Amino acid sequence: MRDELKIPGALQPAAPTKSFSEGLVRGVLEGDFRSVARLITLVEDGVPESSAFLRALFPHTGRCFTVGVTGSPGSGKSTLVDCLAGHYRGLGLKVGIIAVDPTSPFTGGAILGDRIRMQSRSLDSGTFIRSMATRGQLGGLARATADALMVLDSAGFDIVLVETVGVGQDEVEVARAAQATLVLVVPGMGDDIQAMKAGIMEIGDIFVINKADHAGADRVETEIRTLVSISTRSDGWKPEVVRTVASEGLGIGSCAGAIERFRGFFTASERGRDRALQIQRERLLELVRSKVLLDLMNRPGCAELVDALARRVVSREIDPFSAADELLACVCGSPGHPRETT
Amino acid sequence: MRDELKIPGALQPAAPTKSFSEGLVRGVLEGDFRSVARLITLVEDGVPESSAFLRALFPHTGRCFTVGVTGSPGSGKSTLVDCLAGHYRGLGLKVGIIAVDPTSPFTGGAILGDRIRMQSRSLDSGTFIRSMATRGQLGGLARATADALMVLDSAGFDIVLVETVGVGQDEVEVARAAQATLVLVVPGMGDDIQAMKAGIMEIGDIFVINKADHAGADRVETEIRTLVSISTRSDGWKPEVVRTVASEGLGIGSCAGAIERFRGFFTASERGRDRALQIQRERLLELVRSKVLLDLMNRPGCAELVDALARRVVSREIDPFSAADELLACVCGSPGHPRETT
Repeated sequence: MRDELKIPGALQPAAPTKSFSEGLVRGVLEGDFRSVARLITLVEDGVPESSAFLRALFPHTGRCFTVGVTGSPGSGKSTLVDCLAGHYRGLGLKVGIIAVDPTSPFTGGAILGDRIRMQSRSLDSGTFIRSMATRGQLGGLARATADALMVLDSAGFDIVLVETVGVGQDEVEVARAAQATLVLVVPGMGDDIQAMKAGIMEIGDIFVINKADHAGADRVETEIRTLVSISTRSDGWKPEVVRTVASEGLGIGSCAGAIERFRGFFTASERGRDRALQIQRERLLELVRSKVLLDLMNRPGCAELVDALARRVVSREIDPFSAADELLACVCGSPGHPRETT
Repeated sequence: MRDELKIPGALQPAAPTKSFSEGLVRGVLEGDFRSVARLITLVEDGVPESSAFLRALFPHTGRCFTVGVTGSPGSGKSTLVDCLAGHYRGLGLKVGIIAVDPTSPFTGGAILGDRIRMQSRSLDSGTFIRSMATRGQLGGLARATADALMVLDSAGFDIVLVETVGVGQDEVEVARAAQATLVLVVPGMGDDIQAMKAGIMEIGDIFVINKADHAGADRVETEIRTLVSISTRSDGWKPEVVRTVASEGLGIGSCAGAIERFRGFFTASERGRDRALQIQRERLLELVRSKVLLDLMNRPGCAELVDALARRVVSREIDPFSAADELLACVCGSPGHPRETT
């Protein structure tokens, strides 16, 4: 099977052997950082075997709380995430950080991740840090992030902070995969950012006004409180608004307090359970979306079929929708026998 | 069939009748703006019938040139797009603008689109303008944008400018769906933006230094020219760098000149054709990704199956991967008979 595997844009890791697999799962369950990192790489690459690993880990999940942190570039997400991680470490918790970087589809995101992390001062060696990026179209960043969260959950992490770099749809989906969503805003943002609020308002469980020592903090807080007061969420949670100056470590306690209150709401109330259900529903659909392409590319001859069909579309012999139908038939067909195209 | 259609997060338009369908296709082919707008709405909503419309339009496509414009918030994308549209209108061309707004998944993006467009001064009534946003997970913004481009192509538009609002993975994919990609940079951007360059460098066919009258323009131009000089593109195109002050209409001619040179490369050279092939390859995979979810949700009982499976995952009776397998089997199963789950 492995010989036919072709994932465009992804390095092909060596095929896991049985003893490697067992060792890896055991290592993750024991909380070994290296095992966790290795499995996340397999998950990120969309290696078919990774779902077998995740199935084995699933019974050991369900205890970790995940917090997504989103906001526009320059709002200080990494600094706040570092501060929160330091706070939780101080409480003796096992903390993970995932920095999701969908803006570097070609570099693999490691450069940015390293760059950010070199600046971290508040982090000790007991914090697991990982940057993730999409690897071509096959991956599905929301899917890969959700899988990575499951790995960390099974490895005994108490809390995982998921930081997104961009501000697009993909990041919103990533943030929604976490149980709590923090939205960072800063005083004096440009028009584009103001316009984004409409969408971001609806995903924020907690709004953090960072750089609250800058001019305009009162104004942006008034704006957000106004928007929060007029919006009604179906789950009944009233989003909190807190102020921080993350670069100086100010307001971190009150931010963590708001997270704790939301966690209580999320885990204890009926409506919180509705939200857990919604997260799983979206995760399932995302898994199906990802799976269909992985299945497709894993079938012998299907990569060539994609090429052949693309050629026929370019030469206008076939329209793209009929071509997509042929590909989908290939996914649903019997393994090893993609439908012939001429 | 239509009675069972459930697309979460999407308004359900009335089912198109046969005469409506014929009228719509004819209207689009005649270049009627209202017909174009209506069909794009159907496409955006992921209405199953929309692919039949697109199939009918496909033979009439292939003439339009599409230009994606991307860059970070505040770089002046809309202003540049307006200027370019004005330039092409002055040449007597039929111009379309699609403003893609993946950051407003909940508001439908219309608010932002209108806000931006109210500021437009350089546009006459002969320019077709449309904002697009994703409607829940089913849509697939790259897929919807590619479909909308096909509609405009068949309606006789000479050039379509696709402007993206965000800077994430989704926007990169949208920009790549266009034939030429312009990347806007402005002098004096923050660290986050600098970091993004790694990814953005590889998608830009033309780099536009906008707000070139600001301090730091020379420095950013030097940086970009350095990066361009050391990067080798597989298609052999050497990205051009131009300067504009879009707010004052400066540099628009030289920007249009660069687009024209890239167009020549794209349409005439062997390597340009390779790129056309790559665009179609990605479009096919995206179509399959979108189609599988649409097919799923259109099967009677499948929305309920998604719910039931999500519930079982939350109560830990089944892992998400086995649940996804069940859903995928439902897509591949015979219509109207999703596999039972208990």
